Amino acid sequence: MDSLAVSLTGDYDQIIERVTKALQSEGFGVLTRIDLDKAFKDKLGVDFRRYAILGACNPKLAHTAVTADPEVGLLLPCNVTVEEMPERVQVRFVDPEAMMSMGKLGEKAAVKELAADAKSRLTRAAKSLAST
Amino acid sequence: MDSLAVSLTGDYDQIIERVTKALQSEGFGVLTRIDLDKAFKDKLGVDFRRYAILGACNPKLAHTAVTADPEVGLLLPCNVTVEEMPERVQVRFVDPEAMMSMGKLGEKAAVKELAADAKSRLTRAAKSLAST
Repeated sequence: MDSLAVSLTGDYDQIIERVTKALQSEGFGVLTRIDLDKAFKDKLGVDFRRYAILGACNPKLAHTAVTADPEVGLLLPCNVTVEEMPERVQVRFVDPEAMMSMGKLGEKAAVKELAADAKSRLTRAAKSLAST
Repeated sequence: MDSLAVSLTGDYDQIIERVTKALQSEGFGVLTRIDLDKAFKDKLGVDFRRYAILGACNPKLAHTAVTADPEVGLLLPCNVTVEEMPERVQVRFVDPEAMMSMGKLGEKAAVKELAADAKSRLTRAAKSLAST
C-alpha cells in the first residue's frame, strides 16, 4: 500500500514521543499502542527488532465518519508504525484515503472528504517530523 | 469495504466476551480496545451508542507477515467492531484479504497466503458466534 514514510535518526523511545506530539498537533490522540517485539517475545519466544504500532484517532473526524457509516470503525484508528532499524528509525503513517477507498465506503462523499482531511493532517505530521 | 458481519441479541458486554473467546479459539488475542462512545464523550462531550473497536492479533501470522514485509504493521491488528443497536448488537470482522490487497502488498505471495489464512480464521470465529 501507499504510505507516508519518514526515516529518522535518534533514540527509539524519544522518536515515539516526537511522533505522539506531532500527531497531537494535528488533533490525533494515540489511543492504543502495540509493541510487536514484546508481543512476539511473550507469545512466541522469538526476538524481533523494536516495532510499535500506534493507533491514532482524531475524535472529531472519527465521530463524523462513524456517524456517516458505522462500518468505518473497522478502519480506525489510523496506524502509525515506528520500527527500529540499524542506524535509523523508520516511521510510517497509514494512508487514510487508500484505506477508506475500499469497497463501498469509497463511494460515500462524506467519508471521502474526511479521509482527505485525515490524510492532509497526517502528511503535515510526517513532514514536521522530517524537518525537525 | 467487504466485511463479515453477525447480528446478535444479548447483553453488549457479554457479547464482547463471546467475541473475545471466539477469536481466542482461532489463535487471536485481543490486544487493544477502543470504546468509541467513551472517547466521544470524553473528548467531544457527545453521546454515542456503545461501540467498541477490538484489535485482534494472531502472533504467529503477524510475525510471519511483518517479517515478509514490515509495512504490514500498518494494517495490524485485525479489527472487530461491536456496536449496540436497538434490540441487537452488530459485530463486524475486518476482511484481511481486502486489507492486504492494497497497493504493493497484494503482490507478495507470502502476504496473500497469510491474509487468506487470517480470513478463514475470522470467518470461522464469526460463524461460531452466529450459531451459538
